[in-house]
This record gives sequence, C-alpha cells and structure tokens, in this order.
Amino acid sequence: MCSLPLPQEPLRRVAVIGGTHGNEMSGVYLARHWLQAPGELRRPSFSATPVLANPAAAAACRRYVDCDLNRSFTGTFLTARPHPDDPYEVKRARELNQLLGPKASSQAFDFVLDLHNTTANMGTCLILEAAHNVFAMHLCRHLQLQNPELPCQVFLYKLPGEESCSLNSVAKNGMGLELGPQPQGVLRADLFTRMRALVSSVLDFIQLFNQGTAFPAFEMEVYRAVSSVHFPRTEAGDLAGIVHPQLQDRDFEPLRPGAPIFQMFSGEDKLYEGESTVYPVFINEAAYYEKGIAFFQTEKLMVSVPALPALAPAPAPTP
Amino acid sequence: MCSLPLPQEPLRRVAVIGGTHGNEMSGVYLARHWLQAPGELRRPSFSATPVLANPAAAAACRRYVDCDLNRSFTGTFLTARPHPDDPYEVKRARELNQLLGPKASSQAFDFVLDLHNTTANMGTCLILEAAHNVFAMHLCRHLQLQNPELPCQVFLYKLPGEESCSLNSVAKNGMGLELGPQPQGVLRADLFTRMRALVSSVLDFIQLFNQGTAFPAFEMEVYRAVSSVHFPRTEAGDLAGIVHPQLQDRDFEPLRPGAPIFQMFSGEDKLYEGESTVYPVFINEAAYYEKGIAFFQTEKLMVSVPALPALAPAPAPTP
Repeated sequence: MCSLPLPQEPLRRVAVIGGTHGNEMSGVYLARHWLQAPGELRRPSFSATPVLANPAAAAACRRYVDCDLNRSFTGTFLTARPHPDDPYEVKRARELNQLLGPKASSQAFDFVLDLHNTTANMGTCLILEAAHNVFAMHLCRHLQLQNPELPCQVFLYKLPGEESCSLNSVAKNGMGLELGPQPQGVLRADLFTRMRALVSSVLDFIQLFNQGTAFPAFEMEVYRAVSSVHFPRTEAGDLAGIVHPQLQDRDFEPLRPGAPIFQMFSGEDKLYEGESTVYPVFINEAAYYEKGIAFFQTEKLMVSVPALPALAPAPAPTP
Repeated sequence: MCSLPLPQEPLRRVAVIGGTHGNEMSGVYLARHWLQAPGELRRPSFSATPVLANPAAAAACRRYVDCDLNRSFTGTFLTARPHPDDPYEVKRARELNQLLGPKASSQAFDFVLDLHNTTANMGTCLILEAAHNVFAMHLCRHLQLQNPELPCQVFLYKLPGEESCSLNSVAKNGMGLELGPQPQGVLRADLFTRMRALVSSVLDFIQLFNQGTAFPAFEMEVYRAVSSVHFPRTEAGDLAGIVHPQLQDRDFEPLRPGAPIFQMFSGEDKLYEGESTVYPVFINEAAYYEKGIAFFQTEKLMVSVPALPALAPAPAPTP
C-alpha cells in the first residue's frame, strides 16, 4: 500500500463543511448554526472553520443550482479563465479553492470534513478516497471505538485512475460523513444529533493527534467501490423497474449471485447476474436517479493500517 | 351533517392522477406506466383515465415549477383571462379543468383519485375534504375492509370557510391517496405495490356501486384538521429547532399537553402547550418547510355515515 505522507505538524487549519449539496439538511443546518455559534468547533490546539459550501442551493433547498459542486473541483474548472456564464457551482468551487486551498498547494487547509446525507439506509458511513490515507483511517478507527453502539462503515469511493474532484480534494486531507436515511429537504433530530456528536469526535481526534498522541496499527473492514448498477430501462429510455423490496434498505449487506435486484413494472424480478458476492451501497439514493444509478457495488476488504506515530515535540525555543 | 348529493347514475368518467406534485414518485411512475398500459384501469362498467398532472415538474423531479398545482384550482385562476406570463401551474390547472371539469359543471368527471406521497410516517392515508362526502366515506370504508392488515387512516383536511382549490375539486367527487414515508425523488417498491393495489380496490368499489350494490351505514374514526404548527424561529427568521425525536414518525398518535414537540438547536425542549390531546399528521413533511409548517394538528372524531343505497336500475328500453 502506497501511503499518503503523514502530517508532520499539528493540524491547525481545519474546516467543517455543510451544504455541499443544498438539500442534505443535517449539514446545512449545522453549518448555519456554527456560523452563528462557532464555539462548539474550538479545541485547545485549533478552531475549526464552519463553511456553508453551496449557499444558493441551500436557499433553494436543491442539490445544486447548475451542476454538482462536489464534482466541480477538477483541475480544468479551477484553472480555467473565469467567465461570467460559468455555472454557479464552478464559480463557487473557485471561491472555495481560494478559501480552503489552493488545491495541491502548501497553503491548503490541513483537513476538511464534509457533511452529507443520503436517502439510502447507510446508517453512519465514513467516506474516504482510498485506504492509503493513514491519518484518515485512524480517524475512522477512532470514531468506531468512540461509538461502539453505532455501526460506522468505511466506504472507499475512488475508482482507479479517476481524478479527485470532490470538495475534500482542495485540502491536504479530508473525509466525508454520510448519514442516512433522511429524505432530501427534511431535518431529522436523530441524525442531526448524531452528526453533531460525530463532528465533535472528529475534532477530538485531531486534538489528540495535535497534542502528541500516538495511535497503534490495526486491521479494519472496509467497503471499496467496484462499479455502479443502472436501473432497467424501456426501449424508449423510461424506467422499466424499481429496486427490489428484498434489496431496498440492505446497504452493506451481502448480495449473492441469483438474488433479486429489480422488480419490473411488468411484474417479474430481475436477478443479480454477477459471479461473486458484492455489498451494495447508496441503494435507491434520490440524487442518483438523474444519472440512472440504482446502487453501487462494493467489495468488502480487510486492510492493515500502520501505526500513526506521535508528532515530534516542537523544538524548544532557542534561548 | 349536510351530505353531498349521492350519485344517481353509474360513475363512467373516472380519472386516476399521478404527479400532481412532480417529486412524489409512486403516482408519477404509476401514471407513466398506465399511459402506456391502460388495461389495468379497465372495469366492466368504465375505464379510468390515467393523467400525469404536472409533466414539467415530474420531468424536473420537483414539487412544482412555479407554484403548487394542488392549490391552483381557484375560481380566480380558472376564470381569469389567460396571459402568457401566467405561472406554469396556473396554465396547467386550466388545461386540467378543461379535461376533467369544468369545475362545478355537469360535464365534470364523476370521480378523480389523486395519488400523493409524503416524507412523513403517514402509512396509508385517505384524504377527503369533509365527512359529508358519503360516497367517498363508503369508499374509505371499503378500502379499510379490503385491507385489514393495513391501517388506512381517514384525514379530513378542509378548514371551515376555506375555498376548495385542490385538483380533486374540478370533478364532481374525488379523494386523495397519501402514502408514506417516502423521500421525494425516490420510488420504493413497497409503496409502489401498495398504491397500485389500493387504486385497484378503488376501481373495484366504483364497479360494485355501478353494478347496483348497496352499502350499509357504519361508524368510522376520522382525523379532522384543526390547525398548523410552525417551526420555532430565531429573531432573524432562521429555524431555531427541529421536530422532537419523541414526536418524529408518530403521525396519528395522541400528543398530550406537556409533551415535547421541538428540540431547539440550543439544546432545550419546547413543549406542546395546548389544553387538549391532538393527533399530529404530516410531521416533518419536506414540502411544508417552505411554509414553515412542522405538522398539522387534528382531532379524532367518530362519525356516523348513512347507508349508500343501490342505484335504481336503468329504465328498460321502451319497446
């Protein structure tokens, strides 16, 4: 495993981001609340910056205004010469790149935590690009240990060769927090409280690291994205079926060859024809209908994560 | 109780309507399916007409484009001189009034069934203006008897003195079918199947009536709208709290004086200060955030519904 370089200094510049998608309400309302009352985001060694990433989409209670902000942090968009007709989210990506980046520069924020909701039954899901991010893997482990009553699944979303174009990619490091199920445009108290507590645990972990705590190596179960599965269509391109009731709400559970995945409007079942067991996630997520995606297939892996050594003590000031 | 006149003739002109709100997916996809395959809506004495009420909103997967179609069937909108700048839904209301009405005329459809979803935990809810609609009350009773395993609550939504401006109001008679919980923009197989079966039962009831079946008097529990309850706000007008976890998902359950209704972002609870027990419905419905409504209070009543006599046999043709 080719690891990302470990932080050599305390993480001082940390952001907590809500409303990257404007109708995912837990993060929208937490960000709005913290912008008024940022004290909750303070720790002895740093203060996290609250950010409402897509204020226009949040005001309209839509995922986005012109295009998906969380796919807009590409090198092409960030470096192109700005034009007044650029999509709103491309303009906003450039602003956020100025605030939190610039992407891939030494001035970029040390860590950003991006808050999301899904309509899928994902429970508490921690989203990383890949397992080689040792710091973030230790953070995931910390959240699991702090919340033994709460299944916290780790989802590695990046397919090989894919460009990083998420909001997190502008910072040196980052993680997504994905809580569900929650309908778009609805704020549920249970998820709001859970997200608030998880953000607090994330900040506590960074504080522990900053103050010189070492974390031992461990092994961890993760779910790694393999491919997307599309809804069945009629010849005219309309939806011809629906996620099967035996698959609905079964995120992270094994899907075995021959199990039903779609119930066709005509009545018959469509079966999973793969050769090996997979673990579906984002099953029947509202936001993916426009892409025709019914769910993602993942594989379940056990990964070994090396120790996270304590930061070297700051050099004593010269007398 | 001042009853609506009972039908004196078989109901021949019946419509089943989906997509009055374009992101309530069970009705949207059932209407699209039936427009391709209308055979399922045929009965010996009539064929129901499938209608996709708001095709532009359904295409955009939004509740509406310019304004709520289901509040647009007012006398003012329907009779005003058309103007190119009229809101899309006002234009569409006029088209539907031509197709299914005209409202309050003898040419209007005999019955329309309007299909809706809610993000609230309403289960199967049958929506009528008021209990004086004896024919529709018998239909509700029929659905309850046909589905003993399924709680089918009857909600009477009309407040005294309010104008009827729903889509149903263009026809001589009608009912709303409200299934939840389902996120906006998501099609769940369980609710899709249940809605399809309930529509079939509605058409079966109309067929029974048309073929001369009489239905005896009965008593029935109903929930009648009393008032709406708004979210708490900060002085600046922002949301200051959230539906309390002890109220969330408890639609149709008793809410007693002193019980918590909101959890404030600051931490404390806000209690229900009314003097009598009420029965909340549409708790935390996504579509009502824009109006600031957290839920509706209803009162539970037992109503006596008179018998629905058999239609008089058609006169024999003169020799």
